[in-house]
Amino acid sequence: MSASTVDPADPVFRLHVGGKMAVASTVPLTSREDLSLAYTPGVARVCEAIAADPALADDYTWVSHTVAVVTDGSAVLGLGNIGPRAALPVMEGKAVLFKQFAGVDAVPICLDTQDVDEIVATVKALAPSFGGINLEDISAPRCFEVERRLDEALPIPVFHDDQHGTAIVVLAALRNAATLLNRKLGDLRVVVSGAGAAGVAVTAMLVAGGVNPEQVVVCDSKGIIGRHRADLTETKAYLAETTNAENRQGDVTEALRGADVLIGVSGGQIPEEAVAGMAPGGIVFALANPNPEVHPEVAARHVAVVATGRSDYPNQINNVLAFPGVFRGALDARATRITDGMKVAAADAIAAVVAESLTADAIVPSPLDPRVAPAVAEAVAEAARRDGVARA
Amino acid sequence: MSASTVDPADPVFRLHVGGKMAVASTVPLTSREDLSLAYTPGVARVCEAIAADPALADDYTWVSHTVAVVTDGSAVLGLGNIGPRAALPVMEGKAVLFKQFAGVDAVPICLDTQDVDEIVATVKALAPSFGGINLEDISAPRCFEVERRLDEALPIPVFHDDQHGTAIVVLAALRNAATLLNRKLGDLRVVVSGAGAAGVAVTAMLVAGGVNPEQVVVCDSKGIIGRHRADLTETKAYLAETTNAENRQGDVTEALRGADVLIGVSGGQIPEEAVAGMAPGGIVFALANPNPEVHPEVAARHVAVVATGRSDYPNQINNVLAFPGVFRGALDARATRITDGMKVAAADAIAAVVAESLTADAIVPSPLDPRVAPAVAEAVAEAARRDGVARA
Repeated sequence: MSASTVDPADPVFRLHVGGKMAVASTVPLTSREDLSLAYTPGVARVCEAIAADPALADDYTWVSHTVAVVTDGSAVLGLGNIGPRAALPVMEGKAVLFKQFAGVDAVPICLDTQDVDEIVATVKALAPSFGGINLEDISAPRCFEVERRLDEALPIPVFHDDQHGTAIVVLAALRNAATLLNRKLGDLRVVVSGAGAAGVAVTAMLVAGGVNPEQVVVCDSKGIIGRHRADLTETKAYLAETTNAENRQGDVTEALRGADVLIGVSGGQIPEEAVAGMAPGGIVFALANPNPEVHPEVAARHVAVVATGRSDYPNQINNVLAFPGVFRGALDARATRITDGMKVAAADAIAAVVAESLTADAIVPSPLDPRVAPAVAEAVAEAARRDGVARA
Repeated sequence: MSASTVDPADPVFRLHVGGKMAVASTVPLTSREDLSLAYTPGVARVCEAIAADPALADDYTWVSHTVAVVTDGSAVLGLGNIGPRAALPVMEGKAVLFKQFAGVDAVPICLDTQDVDEIVATVKALAPSFGGINLEDISAPRCFEVERRLDEALPIPVFHDDQHGTAIVVLAALRNAATLLNRKLGDLRVVVSGAGAAGVAVTAMLVAGGVNPEQVVVCDSKGIIGRHRADLTETKAYLAETTNAENRQGDVTEALRGADVLIGVSGGQIPEEAVAGMAPGGIVFALANPNPEVHPEVAARHVAVVATGRSDYPNQINNVLAFPGVFRGALDARATRITDGMKVAAADAIAAVVAESLTADAIVPSPLDPRVAPAVAEAVAEAARRDGVARA
């Protein structure tokens, strides 16, 4: 059976018949009186009040608890550019996770365009309908421009989960791994393998969290990024400026020589010899799914702490630890945007959930741990107020 | 208290706190196994299948039961151009009525633009996320172009409810009123007062249902529309060509002289003397809300059957009798568009629900009658198959 064949007996297909979500009314609608309150003529009073003071939409519509999960289908899971219709099952999955973990009402919006200007125009146009915009599975480097322009244009939080969700959980995991190994974040020599959406965001988040950028080396498919490279996009040129102070050159094996930390976010395989060249007592996060950059059992021969993106090994680095609580906190604070401070606060809150019970096999909570989202939401809302972007 | 003041003790405002709707998961999400089916890694199989055959999105996503309720906030209820945020309570109300009456999952999309090109581009871009597009409260004449262009461009049903929802229920009511009075639709002399979105659509629907266009006279705020008028938009010029065969001129009082039917969809008040000039045994539908063009008790002095848009008088002409069942039927048949035949079938189905118990005070079912939406859905799906626009 080919990968694209439908097997109606497959539990996955059986589960997906009719999709995974529904809309529900939260008000009664069974009598004429009900209709006159929820719809005409009563609703006109609420409309007039919001027309006079648009901020009242936060109180009297569902925007205060909604997020649009927006994709163009260009970089879906490990499947690549499969388009908006094929992306919808992932976006529905994301939406129901928002609800399950944080009570956020999320709506999948799959766009029939991959043009940056059109994506930005479309999301700006529909933004009054939602309290936040979760960008999802938009390929690099377009995702950077889409997020930057929407963040500037909109008065509501915009968050590209493939970048920042991953980065937040990586920072949380690295904090706990460093604590466990009695290391300071600022002392670690870190290699990030992959300079796409996740790699760029992970690098920025680690620096925001205390890693010394001069001791970070980022690799793309052509090897180490540094000032010696003449083939760099704007985003990678910035990495070349700010990381790799020693101006190391070569491939990922060269980058890993003596490094304390490897964070794989590329899918490119990394040979065992390269991992063997790391400093003693190292840390490997091999996050490609379903095939980690280095198999966790292989990595474990050479380093002290190993994490992956897979649910069948310990230390699963899963975005679901971040995005529900991040948006819940941002919405609760009526934040106008999501700051670096809010992201670092989210990472710290995730790390803190398991801080008292740290072991090498439990540096992050389980994706199903019900303590995580409320803790993240509270920390994010506090940080929003601290950073001056909260309206409540 | 001004109309735009919030009174927290008002039951309408109390009901609207936090809005009127929520998203719900229809699948379990409490175990790792659940997550691996509904989200990664299992969901990738569904994505791959849809990428290979996009029609499978109808089976394995929620599009088959969803509708976007799209507005630009330019003509909301009787409130006018109050913008997208203030329109949201109405769109939420519409969405929960879709769910309540027909099990359709509807999502409000309130657009931050009133430019026709931008509205069309935005709705085209987000269309893969939904099974149908319900346009709502977009002012004339822009609404005609928006609907026409989207109907041409999209492979899913597009339906401007202010036009066609109203028109369908008017046709249903007129059919039953004519039956009650032993009149044939083709013999009736009909005056439509109002040439906005509803007036234009009502005229077209009555003709599609059997009224003789030569015996229809449409009035706008300047009086009778006919070939004598030099100030007409494209839409009104078409009315001048096709209606008013006698080329009558003058105001609505002149139009009503000897007429059998008045359908008011303008809000412009009509004096009692004008109604008194109608032929004996007439019919008045005065649909402006909350102030009918002529008060129903005044109209009743001169005609045999009276209907309004109000819930506190008999014969409430309410769109909710049409739109839930129309979309349920269109979605059930996987219709690619909504044809005139489907609209006439909807009207006939609404009329048929009360055909056995017709009285002058019960020419249409109650908006809460649970028999209506299933009957409309079945008739619309059948008509879609008959008209060759069904994919199921």
